[in-house]
Amino acid sequence: MTFTEDHEIFRTTVRGVIERYVLPYVDEWEERGIFPAHELFPQLADAGLLGLEYDVAYGGQGADHLYTLVLGEELGRIPSMGVFTAVAVQTDMATPSLHQHGSHALKERFLRPALEGRAVAAIAVTEPEAGSDVAGLRTRAVRDGDNWIINGSKLYITNGVQADWLCLLARTSDEGGSRGMSQIIVPTSTPGLQVSRSLRKVGNKASDTAELSFVDVRVPVANTIGEIGRGFSQQMRQFQHERMIGAYMAVGGMLEALARTRRFVCDRRAFGKSLGHNQYIQYRLAELSAELDLLRAYTHACAEAFVRGEDTQRQTAICKLKAARLQREIADWCLQFHGGQGYMEENWTARYFRDARLLSIGGGADEIMLRTLARLDGLPA
Amino acid sequence: MTFTEDHEIFRTTVRGVIERYVLPYVDEWEERGIFPAHELFPQLADAGLLGLEYDVAYGGQGADHLYTLVLGEELGRIPSMGVFTAVAVQTDMATPSLHQHGSHALKERFLRPALEGRAVAAIAVTEPEAGSDVAGLRTRAVRDGDNWIINGSKLYITNGVQADWLCLLARTSDEGGSRGMSQIIVPTSTPGLQVSRSLRKVGNKASDTAELSFVDVRVPVANTIGEIGRGFSQQMRQFQHERMIGAYMAVGGMLEALARTRRFVCDRRAFGKSLGHNQYIQYRLAELSAELDLLRAYTHACAEAFVRGEDTQRQTAICKLKAARLQREIADWCLQFHGGQGYMEENWTARYFRDARLLSIGGGADEIMLRTLARLDGLPA
Amino acid sequence: MTFTEDHEIFRTTVRGVIERYVLPYVDEWEERGIFPAHELFPQLADAGLLGLEYDVAYGGQGADHLYTLVLGEELGRIPSMGVFTAVAVQTDMATPSLHQHGSHALKERFLRPALEGRAVAAIAVTEPEAGSDVAGLRTRAVRDGDNWIINGSKLYITNGVQADWLCLLARTSDEGGSRGMSQIIVPTSTPGLQVSRSLRKVGNKASDTAELSFVDVRVPVANTIGEIGRGFSQQMRQFQHERMIGAYMAVGGMLEALARTRRFVCDRRAFGKSLGHNQYIQYRLAELSAELDLLRAYTHACAEAFVRGEDTQRQTAICKLKAARLQREIADWCLQFHGGQGYMEENWTARYFRDARLLSIGGGADEIMLRTLARLDGLPA
Amino acid sequence: MTFTEDHEIFRTTVRGVIERYVLPYVDEWEERGIFPAHELFPQLADAGLLGLEYDVAYGGQGADHLYTLVLGEELGRIPSMGVFTAVAVQTDMATPSLHQHGSHALKERFLRPALEGRAVAAIAVTEPEAGSDVAGLRTRAVRDGDNWIINGSKLYITNGVQADWLCLLARTSDEGGSRGMSQIIVPTSTPGLQVSRSLRKVGNKASDTAELSFVDVRVPVANTIGEIGRGFSQQMRQFQHERMIGAYMAVGGMLEALARTRRFVCDRRAFGKSLGHNQYIQYRLAELSAELDLLRAYTHACAEAFVRGEDTQRQTAICKLKAARLQREIADWCLQFHGGQGYMEENWTARYFRDARLLSIGGGADEIMLRTLARLDGLPA
Repeated sequence: MTFTEDHEIFRTTVRGVIERYVLPYVDEWEERGIFPAHELFPQLADAGLLGLEYDVAYGGQGADHLYTLVLGEELGRIPSMGVFTAVAVQTDMATPSLHQHGSHALKERFLRPALEGRAVAAIAVTEPEAGSDVAGLRTRAVRDGDNWIINGSKLYITNGVQADWLCLLARTSDEGGSRGMSQIIVPTSTPGLQVSRSLRKVGNKASDTAELSFVDVRVPVANTIGEIGRGFSQQMRQFQHERMIGAYMAVGGMLEALARTRRFVCDRRAFGKSLGHNQYIQYRLAELSAELDLLRAYTHACAEAFVRGEDTQRQTAICKLKAARLQREIADWCLQFHGGQGYMEENWTARYFRDARLLSIGGGADEIMLRTLARLDGLPA
Repeated sequence: MTFTEDHEIFRTTVRGVIERYVLPYVDEWEERGIFPAHELFPQLADAGLLGLEYDVAYGGQGADHLYTLVLGEELGRIPSMGVFTAVAVQTDMATPSLHQHGSHALKERFLRPALEGRAVAAIAVTEPEAGSDVAGLRTRAVRDGDNWIINGSKLYITNGVQADWLCLLARTSDEGGSRGMSQIIVPTSTPGLQVSRSLRKVGNKASDTAELSFVDVRVPVANTIGEIGRGFSQQMRQFQHERMIGAYMAVGGMLEALARTRRFVCDRRAFGKSLGHNQYIQYRLAELSAELDLLRAYTHACAEAFVRGEDTQRQTAICKLKAARLQREIADWCLQFHGGQGYMEENWTARYFRDARLLSIGGGADEIMLRTLARLDGLPA
Repeated sequence: MTFTEDHEIFRTTVRGVIERYVLPYVDEWEERGIFPAHELFPQLADAGLLGLEYDVAYGGQGADHLYTLVLGEELGRIPSMGVFTAVAVQTDMATPSLHQHGSHALKERFLRPALEGRAVAAIAVTEPEAGSDVAGLRTRAVRDGDNWIINGSKLYITNGVQADWLCLLARTSDEGGSRGMSQIIVPTSTPGLQVSRSLRKVGNKASDTAELSFVDVRVPVANTIGEIGRGFSQQMRQFQHERMIGAYMAVGGMLEALARTRRFVCDRRAFGKSLGHNQYIQYRLAELSAELDLLRAYTHACAEAFVRGEDTQRQTAICKLKAARLQREIADWCLQFHGGQGYMEENWTARYFRDARLLSIGGGADEIMLRTLARLDGLPA
Repeated sequence: MTFTEDHEIFRTTVRGVIERYVLPYVDEWEERGIFPAHELFPQLADAGLLGLEYDVAYGGQGADHLYTLVLGEELGRIPSMGVFTAVAVQTDMATPSLHQHGSHALKERFLRPALEGRAVAAIAVTEPEAGSDVAGLRTRAVRDGDNWIINGSKLYITNGVQADWLCLLARTSDEGGSRGMSQIIVPTSTPGLQVSRSLRKVGNKASDTAELSFVDVRVPVANTIGEIGRGFSQQMRQFQHERMIGAYMAVGGMLEALARTRRFVCDRRAFGKSLGHNQYIQYRLAELSAELDLLRAYTHACAEAFVRGEDTQRQTAICKLKAARLQREIADWCLQFHGGQGYMEENWTARYFRDARLLSIGGGADEIMLRTLARLDGLPA
């Protein structure tokens, strides 16, 4: 399974959708600090972008993972990480577990509307006292007959303000550590669930990011995704989707950023010639472009391995780690080579610099990826 | 001439002034995108902070340059680069040439009120078409009897919105290149001078940064600082003051940032112990702290050489270059080690990350420093 | 065309050959500063390793390029860059042009014995006054009837002491620059051709590296490979083979080096636990391993593109550049994590550190790769 | 206490001594793998270089520490780390404890001949099973009446083959860890003490480095330096001298290396102009030169603090760490910018590259410095 002409045709489709429904509004959404998910998602769903790899029985496209790679690369070109991250939450962060392990009823009720763009989903894992340390989370769901009663809080929840339902990870037993957790679908309209804070961030401004508070929130036990007690490992697998699309989007963004910067330095004049005549700038851009090509080849190889059904835990961690690091570096140099303009908010480099900084933290910080890789390489715990 | 107890006493004074007049208001100023220079500067002037090395005859303190170093380090601890940069514009960027080369009348009329905090000064060198390439500037002052008639525009002018007068660098002959420029004091109330835009930046938000437009602006030729035609070299010397205080402030900011981050990682728990127990974090912070100590020692050595009257062109370029690079790196790691919190605007790391990015661009970009150093090391032009 | 089981079987074959004919003798060859090419090459030829992609009509295997990748990765695991580089000169640096452009007679006379291991080949491009600047070379072949008369000198010629024939690049017209060069086969027994010096190097000690002097060396014009005057572009294409196998070998060497170092740090104890328990060491090794995976994926993608017949000028330059940089870094850290032992010649890290440094210089220095990439990215010359 | 004209006069003296007694013989010593300490040291002693800060009562000069800094910088310019490290072992690694804590008799018998160059000293701390982990050493001295009976082995002992006496660190009690160690002077002629191996290293080839074996070696308890049981802390203080002079020598070597490389790139032509016209090379050299200036300023500040009697544990660790890192980087770039020549042993860059690698390992590896700094910065153990 490898890239075909159909994948490239799909790329053109995605570009068309983005040009029509996203690009004209991006600046306004950034300014307002939120984008209208309930308007945009149906438009994306109409183009079949929200459920590429999902079962057609629930409104998915039944496509292969390479379409997701193409979607990710094109989404990443949108000059607003807040927007494209929110889309990826819907398609690859909050829904894969539901699709893979959810009951038919649960998929009908929650997956179908998400794939059709009628419902906005969010993934609720991170907590105030447990950032990248997922095994340290404290939110607790205690069984009361056929219901879970949930108490706790969740932090940095993308789409958290406008989500219709959450894919929540909570403790459902006293075993401690990574044991005894479950994934539970929680409609945001459930009494006791509140947005306690909307958060202001360095970047990703078009995305609403919330702290959520759960006080005796009751949802049916039937809302559990897959097996009770298997939530941690299901979520770890769900993270792989998140890390893959995160890397694909980063690659798309970096391709765009380097291309724009090359154009800029060729146009901008200083000291009697174009900036692009400076060997120092040339070699720096060439080296970054070379590194990006390495990363892109690796994400493609990872996607292909995923399609072949191989275990890609190691590859996804590497994708995430190296995409995040390179994105910081590229954003930093692009801003630098734009000089004073680069630091002005009216220039794309400013937003890109602010946005790009997130990937090394969200979805498992760089240090967590290194920890994961060290374990997989057999180094002692 | 080296550090004495008096310098350390002065440090305490500066801290007191900052705690009283600055820290309580910083967040509000950041939010509003401007700080009240006409309120704050008289308070700083009362404490003798605005004219440390200047002639007492015009309201200065007649102190040695090591006091400026102390002032810079303490200003740099203010968690708002916009504020402390604006102060440094007043003390070390817009006034040194006037003090050194200005006529008595000019100093009475413009330097004295600046040192007393009654007038806000700005330095107007950079232009839209000539960023770090000062020799490429186009603003022109044409003589008409006893007046200059000035036309052109200036960009990225700190304090530009609320300044009372500018130290302007303009072409006063047709020689081209770095020849035939002059430094001219221009009161901002002069007809034809307008703030054409107030600029939004990635950071430095408490500082008003403007684009200024000059259309037939008339000022007396007597407003020329020093000799007509010597503006470029006078400005190059003035830049040395800018680069020194820029480095001192960066050092102060980095000392504060690393101390805060060490405290944070010792307090914050993850994976069953404090973040500070992670060897990877420890060694990274230790290395950054070591690099900061090197830089600080170098700024002190540079300041002492300056006091001894040595040519410090090379040292000031190195101070600027390495302070800017290290500041970017420290800000980046401090944010990283704060995890998700680090990316939230409610945390100091967010503003510091945005602010810290400027120093590699403003006051001569890193690449200009490298160019300067290569020339001084005898490498071919 | 992608990896098959046959390629993996071939990998096992290569390992067997190396274990039998190379590994037992490597230390002795390093000590003597030369390896016996005329003994080893026939052994490799018997196993079919010297002409993988070459025409069976001349003793080649008619295999695809992925076999070359496998060969390169396995050669690179030999703990002596001098040995494996010499083999690669024979297979991928001195013979591709001859195979692609040579006349039937030339191939019978020079290619066949090389593929059979009876003749040792060398590539003679670099000159004392023109290192990576191939267009600046001065060795001149002047036509005299049916002969070329060659004068000049060549430097850093691998296999130069024991080679039987050279693939020489020389000026055959006065056009200057990259024009008017030709590739000519020169038997080393030709009168006037001498080894003027055998060179001692930091590493690659098992490889004989020579300076060659040409004084009125006469060879038939029929020894010209391909068209007269097309030597520069033919050599540029030949360099692509060199850069590819160089990268493949580097990848193999790095895989081996990291695996060995992981084993060492898990065994070696300090401060009451194994070195491998140090998080700083773990994370550094994990990051390097991640970077190596990126590079390896890229070399595979490059090899596949080459098999598909695509223009891989850009990919080969990137392979060369990034393999060379990463190899330096990995060799440096592997030595470091071995501590004092790492610096001792009795330990593999010492030779690896010395050997690994060459790739950033030979076959076009890193700076030449950056220059090439900048041009391909459209940045101004 | 700061630099005076006398210090600069002393610099000239040192240069003269080196030019006369060292430079003409360096290549020969490198080739032979040992330098004649018993010939060279008396020559250095005649010039007063072996005991600068030592008591005149024992043949020292009674000079201040800034003379040591000057000596170190000038020694470091010798193009053979093996030679200058051996000198520094004599002056600043094996003798400071003896000078500070030794009895009168011990100083008469061992310090005086060392300062007069008649006896060669070595420092014996590192062991096969305890590299940078000094607290893990196992060599044991058991008391038998008025004698110590010593058993164990020591590794990587500079001057180990030709030393006349060792400053040995051994366990003299069963307390374990860093407790219960003592520093003992051991004449190398004592029965039972043998050079078990002479070691071949990547660099430092002019220096003899040995593994020593102790089997029932008897020395008087009166040979103990200072108090029994205080050996660890005395050695830690002795390490500070080692780290300081190590940094001074590295600074001298780097100044020389950058100056030579600047000259080379200005002379060497490629692509129709001097290499030095390449902006990429210019900026790299300028940045390295800037970093070296920072380091040099820091070593001077450290030396001055040491003269003032301040605790310089932190400064010496930083000096060692950053000198070692920068030296690796500078050696690497100097070699790179020399191209193929840089890799040839006939060029100074080859030896410098091999030599320079040691400082990050010897005298406490970089990782030990980071560990020390993290502790001093209050990060948790």
